[in-house]
Amino acid sequence: MIDAITLSSRVRLARNFASLPFPEKMSGAQQQQLIEKTENALIGEQHTLIRMDTLSKNAKGVLTESRLISKELTEKDGSAVLLNDSKTLSVMIGEEDQLRIQAMLPGLHLYDAYKIADKCDRTIEKYEPFAFDPDWGYLTACPTNTGTGMRASVLLHLVGLNMLSQIGKVISTVSQVGLTVRGLYGEGSEASGHIYQLTNQVTLGRTESEILKLLTDTAENMAAQEKAARQALLEQDRVKLEDKLMRSFGLMRNAYLLSMREFMTRLSLARLASDLGMIPVTLDALVKLQNAVSPANLERAAGHELSPREQDELRAEMTRKAIQ
Amino acid sequence: MIDAITLSSRVRLARNFASLPFPEKMSGAQQQQLIEKTENALIGEQHTLIRMDTLSKNAKGVLTESRLISKELTEKDGSAVLLNDSKTLSVMIGEEDQLRIQAMLPGLHLYDAYKIADKCDRTIEKYEPFAFDPDWGYLTACPTNTGTGMRASVLLHLVGLNMLSQIGKVISTVSQVGLTVRGLYGEGSEASGHIYQLTNQVTLGRTESEILKLLTDTAENMAAQEKAARQALLEQDRVKLEDKLMRSFGLMRNAYLLSMREFMTRLSLARLASDLGMIPVTLDALVKLQNAVSPANLERAAGHELSPREQDELRAEMTRKAIQ
Repeated sequence: MIDAITLSSRVRLARNFASLPFPEKMSGAQQQQLIEKTENALIGEQHTLIRMDTLSKNAKGVLTESRLISKELTEKDGSAVLLNDSKTLSVMIGEEDQLRIQAMLPGLHLYDAYKIADKCDRTIEKYEPFAFDPDWGYLTACPTNTGTGMRASVLLHLVGLNMLSQIGKVISTVSQVGLTVRGLYGEGSEASGHIYQLTNQVTLGRTESEILKLLTDTAENMAAQEKAARQALLEQDRVKLEDKLMRSFGLMRNAYLLSMREFMTRLSLARLASDLGMIPVTLDALVKLQNAVSPANLERAAGHELSPREQDELRAEMTRKAIQ
Repeated sequence: MIDAITLSSRVRLARNFASLPFPEKMSGAQQQQLIEKTENALIGEQHTLIRMDTLSKNAKGVLTESRLISKELTEKDGSAVLLNDSKTLSVMIGEEDQLRIQAMLPGLHLYDAYKIADKCDRTIEKYEPFAFDPDWGYLTACPTNTGTGMRASVLLHLVGLNMLSQIGKVISTVSQVGLTVRGLYGEGSEASGHIYQLTNQVTLGRTESEILKLLTDTAENMAAQEKAARQALLEQDRVKLEDKLMRSFGLMRNAYLLSMREFMTRLSLARLASDLGMIPVTLDALVKLQNAVSPANLERAAGHELSPREQDELRAEMTRKAIQ
């Protein structure tokens, strides 16, 4: 079951073999070596290797929407990804760094996600050591990742704080402890559907476990504030809140044209309505629906490319069917 | 069954007994005589006499909302109304004129409505003649009614012409043949829920049957234009129309606060959706709902006066239940 506020946890380790240059400077042959090294290091671990150049535009989109790979990875020549069977682990090969070892879990479980990424990291390092400096730690393509090479993040659904206009205050408080809050799809992106990503800015001078503790504590604190905001909204004027949420739900399940942007806004209010027991739709069903109607998944379902208008029609149709 | 476009027909005859002054100049005793005369004239006709001063504010509102009496009648001292059992006929006693004989039928049936009013008119006239001038016809309190003393009107639902922005052109064409188009609740009122009242301006120099024919022909012509507008909307972009109508229906059946103003707008789109077979709700059910949620009926259902907010809550609740 999905948590209503802390949606998911992700830990990403940036690693580079000392024997090869950073991807920016790699030859085609070196890229090939990088993929082979990684495959060999993880032999017997039930992973699937997917080379980006074997994927259709749609297949790349589906993987990006599921956050298993970054958009950047799909744009690099000769890049690949290794996925485990449960899709909790993805090793991006040839992104900004040679390897980005990423583990993702639903809910607030940063330590568990770290354990998955760390195990993979150790397995590869045993096969061949990474570029590591005793003073600086892991060396990375971009200096902001040097040190632990770790970025950890939590996705939070902060609709209540938004509705009470308290989100600005929360974000500025968080930034004072060296953490960042940003939109769902990374730096510079908007908070689509009131989903915020809490992440660490600093990778240097703090241990992994210090970073994970700070993030977990902060996420718990933000979730508690969000919970209080939801309670306050209910207590201020339950009927007005119900009116707002149910009207939005009414639009969602009666629309015949639905843009992704509008869908995300309606989804946010539907999540809140589900959490408050106002609608007979589970949070899990809403998450499934979100995946199903995202552009690449939508085109996969249709079996061909769709114009924006066709996407909006099919999205509306699938949404109507899913939540009637 | 209710017609989708021509909602109802009404004929109203203004009459005054020569033996009594116009209501403006009447004493209390004369008002009493007027009521008695009218009752006696219609004895044996299965009518119910209701004196305004015996009614609660709410009961007056319920009668006004059903259009059986005018708001003016409820405000006059010593006024009354005679209703037949089927509520197709109401004789307002002591409004602007001594008598306003009104017949109302669903659909476009002006001649039939006229027959009902005319039969009542003749019955009363047989008992005691009305003020009548061979040159001017029936004399009335306001000179604009002199002549036939007849106002006939048809209510039309012109949502399609509105959506295509063709309503202005239609109204100006109609005014060129001496007819008027105005909002549902008479002169100066807005076209609430895209409902327009087509009525005759001229009562003098034309016979009743000429007026009825002109109105019927014009109403039929307007209905044909409205039908064509609905067809054009469907053909232009069926999905876009469906999106608009179904979203509105979604709001209507999911709202927890619903003002009368918004209700009328949503009702209008729901009528269109019902007419086009997009929703499983009949036009009759929508008309019943409209009556049920109008302010006075709403307070009658609640059993006590309601604040505007309470009205909006109860209206939303009754609407949700009626069209789920």
